[in-house]
Amino acid sequence: MAITIKDVAKLAGVGIGTASRVINKSGYVSDATEKKVLEAVEKLGYVPNETARAFVSQNNKMVALFLPSIHHAFFSELAFFIEDELDKNGYKMMLCNSDGHLEKELSYISMLKQNKVSGIIGISYNPIENEISDSMPIVLVDRHIGKNIPYVSSDNYGGGKLAFQLLKDTGCSNVAFIGTYSKDLYTEVEKRRKGFEDAAKESGTKYTLYIEEDPIKDEVTFLSKFLSNYPNVDGVFVENDMMALNLVQLALEKNINIPKELSIIGYDGIQTFSPLRPRLTSVRQPVELMGRSVVELLLKRIKGDPVSPVIHPVEFIKGDTTY
Amino acid sequence: MAITIKDVAKLAGVGIGTASRVINKSGYVSDATEKKVLEAVEKLGYVPNETARAFVSQNNKMVALFLPSIHHAFFSELAFFIEDELDKNGYKMMLCNSDGHLEKELSYISMLKQNKVSGIIGISYNPIENEISDSMPIVLVDRHIGKNIPYVSSDNYGGGKLAFQLLKDTGCSNVAFIGTYSKDLYTEVEKRRKGFEDAAKESGTKYTLYIEEDPIKDEVTFLSKFLSNYPNVDGVFVENDMMALNLVQLALEKNINIPKELSIIGYDGIQTFSPLRPRLTSVRQPVELMGRSVVELLLKRIKGDPVSPVIHPVEFIKGDTTY
Repeated sequence: MAITIKDVAKLAGVGIGTASRVINKSGYVSDATEKKVLEAVEKLGYVPNETARAFVSQNNKMVALFLPSIHHAFFSELAFFIEDELDKNGYKMMLCNSDGHLEKELSYISMLKQNKVSGIIGISYNPIENEISDSMPIVLVDRHIGKNIPYVSSDNYGGGKLAFQLLKDTGCSNVAFIGTYSKDLYTEVEKRRKGFEDAAKESGTKYTLYIEEDPIKDEVTFLSKFLSNYPNVDGVFVENDMMALNLVQLALEKNINIPKELSIIGYDGIQTFSPLRPRLTSVRQPVELMGRSVVELLLKRIKGDPVSPVIHPVEFIKGDTTY
Repeated sequence: MAITIKDVAKLAGVGIGTASRVINKSGYVSDATEKKVLEAVEKLGYVPNETARAFVSQNNKMVALFLPSIHHAFFSELAFFIEDELDKNGYKMMLCNSDGHLEKELSYISMLKQNKVSGIIGISYNPIENEISDSMPIVLVDRHIGKNIPYVSSDNYGGGKLAFQLLKDTGCSNVAFIGTYSKDLYTEVEKRRKGFEDAAKESGTKYTLYIEEDPIKDEVTFLSKFLSNYPNVDGVFVENDMMALNLVQLALEKNINIPKELSIIGYDGIQTFSPLRPRLTSVRQPVELMGRSVVELLLKRIKGDPVSPVIHPVEFIKGDTTY
């Protein structure tokens, strides 16, 4: 029998996936492990099987993307730029719509452990903390897991402050934040609320938090109740554009004058979202930059280079829903 | 040296990818080829290498999706249901945003030839006719290539007729179709125009075709010119919802009363597209059914079963832009 990668892995005391990573120079392994594997290769006189090698090295130029929902325009755009940037770097992208499907994500994490994918980009809210380790080539969007899994986000905290400031500058004196919270996860998105709240406190302005646990089951009812129960609120910052647009429509149906009686600001700033008026005022996330930088971080991580989280500045987009 | 799949392929007179398909029971090969490969396996006493086999059989449960643009809500939804249905059948999905990127599609076609992906679903307008053969496990959406590549579409022709009929029934007497044409490709989408045109001719109604070659460079200018140059048109069927919504907005800006002076019908019927009013009247494609049936067809095709094109009935959605 020819020497196989199994023999190499056994002698080096590592898994086949790890041995393969070293031999095919793909994926991250520690220096110590690499040394052990290369010593085993030399000792055994191992020559990689060309076919297997081809399968490994080519199929491995593959990254999995966990997406919470492709229905949401911001995520679709982000996915587009991530795929584009991966392609430029010779990687293909597997798409995993993982909304509520923990087991799907676990199967990709298992593929990562077996070195069948090179890395994972996670825009996802499933509880995968215990399944991943700090050394894996994983980069998250808008979410923190552990200390060493890097993430990319827009400046959610600064965006929240900016939204408050704008409402105040245009004359609102009774403002509210509308959005969600998550019981188990700490997501970057919650910083939108925090920034808004801190800015309101600092300025001594009365504010309301109107929040429900994510995911909101009936958004129309949730938003309608807000309009009924808080008639005196004159300025609202809504967690994302989709929800903000729903609020705009419900307010218009109740003959609430926007922005005269109620100013509304969203978050995301997807510009192609809807051609219909009124155009939403929003805090824009730089979606292309974010998509490309998450790939850049992941590729560094795959090479084993150290990386730090990247937080992108946001931009204010004036629409028709504020003065 | 151990016997490898290379030796099997050589003896059988086939490529490594083909030999692998047979050995791993993945992907389509003709009965004659299968027989040759299995005979070679027996003659050589070939035992598949477990690692390579694992790579092949697991990585191969993979389908590539060519998407023209993830920015378009209809395609995003379709991609979502395709991924969901593939997942239920144990397949992973690679996403290829292929708008204008012929070379990207070719690289996946090459992976298909090498049996590194099991099949391809193409929602795409690149000229790949010469690169694919009728026997490959490929299924298209809204497009025809050759005689034996199956496709899935909604009833575009019937939808066009339906749109005309609705405009007529609500009192329009001077109708127009607004959309695109393609010089080189024959796409299913063009049947929307054909159905509209035939129905108008049959009923003896005056009609206008206002079309520009796909992709339209400046949609706003294109649509504005229509409104200026055809003031007497009182009913319009627009090729897709996105363009129809742009027309609605431009008409509103010109103080054209919708639907009193101008009725507008789109095509797609993405219901979550925009919460803002007016709601668009549209011909709805059954996006979930289409997504799932394209996967069903592809899986049959991968098994080598015969398949026929599937055309799904459309549904009419009454919005605010028609009576």
